Amino acid sequence: MTINYPVGTHHYRTLKTNKTRTGRTTKKVLFGKRGMGLEDEINLANDYYLANRLAVVHKKPTPITIVKVDYPARSAAKITEAYFKQASTTDYNGVYQGKYIDFDAKETKNKTSFPLKNFHEHQISHLASVLTQGGIGFVIIKFTSLNENYVYPASELIKQWQHLNGKQSISYQEIVDKSFVVSESLNPSLDYLTAVDKMLELLH
Amino acid sequence: MTINYPVGTHHYRTLKTNKTRTGRTTKKVLFGKRGMGLEDEINLANDYYLANRLAVVHKKPTPITIVKVDYPARSAAKITEAYFKQASTTDYNGVYQGKYIDFDAKETKNKTSFPLKNFHEHQISHLASVLTQGGIGFVIIKFTSLNENYVYPASELIKQWQHLNGKQSISYQEIVDKSFVVSESLNPSLDYLTAVDKMLELLH
Repeated sequence: MTINYPVGTHHYRTLKTNKTRTGRTTKKVLFGKRGMGLEDEINLANDYYLANRLAVVHKKPTPITIVKVDYPARSAAKITEAYFKQASTTDYNGVYQGKYIDFDAKETKNKTSFPLKNFHEHQISHLASVLTQGGIGFVIIKFTSLNENYVYPASELIKQWQHLNGKQSISYQEIVDKSFVVSESLNPSLDYLTAVDKMLELLH
Repeated sequence: MTINYPVGTHHYRTLKTNKTRTGRTTKKVLFGKRGMGLEDEINLANDYYLANRLAVVHKKPTPITIVKVDYPARSAAKITEAYFKQASTTDYNGVYQGKYIDFDAKETKNKTSFPLKNFHEHQISHLASVLTQGGIGFVIIKFTSLNENYVYPASELIKQWQHLNGKQSISYQEIVDKSFVVSESLNPSLDYLTAVDKMLELLH
């Protein structure tokens, strides 16, 4: 069964339609940041927060195992063999009004559920450690097909992970019920800290 | 004028002396972690803090610009061209009893001063942003020749950076006066959080 949620789709305004060489139709989006990936939107929000002294949050670099490095004369060192490494923590952390915040960002095209395979075991245990230490943990979940963004508390994620044994999916409704919606905003386009404020009011 | 500080040097116990093929004499250190780099010592301390639920602190991965990636059939993606990128933040951050901590680690062989060229401008401004946001910022400075480690508050570093215009060096005595010494310890060998506790008592 496919459920169609109309929310958000009306925000897409088609500028013009092009045919690609393979015959696929591509649409150009007129308004703003709709075509951006979640990561770009979060980076823009973090730039805005930093410039306005609201928070200091950075994305961690991609973890890599370096095997071979060349040092060409008079040039910068060049890495010629390296491999991607599985991250042992989440992608983002920082400080917000003296508090430690720690989160990951995940997007899904799925409209009815959020698959837990988006996470690794040690990301979950990292978030659990953060909560134990009094930090604020969450996930920003974007349902791309619905253009909806949620701040989903780490405590709920951990509960569901244990309940579902790290497999299967969390239902869309469960996420909506337990999350704090990131409302439409102009600058930053993804004002996730306002949703975090609501979470802190309720949970702390 | 060279000042010899005897502190710490007696901790080196020579196990045996080997001659290498080039005729250089190498010494093997008997006791513990003396031969370790500062980064290794901090990583071990962070492992200890995590396992004992005292703090969650991780080193950030080295920032890299990836240019070319090969995807060999049935193997992991292989990065074949990449370059080191200047870090825009410090190397370590995390949460300690609900508080955000953020620091960098620097070692110097120098016995009388600590050269400011160890820092980049944006590392200093990052630490300034962290302090503005109510976070705890500092640098762990190791004088390798003296085997002395200090937790030097970010507020002092920023003051000296402005005073010396990002050039020159901070004198050893200035660092000793304004820092919190990391005492000898067994496990972890570099128990920097105990020094941070002393800093918090005085500064907050």
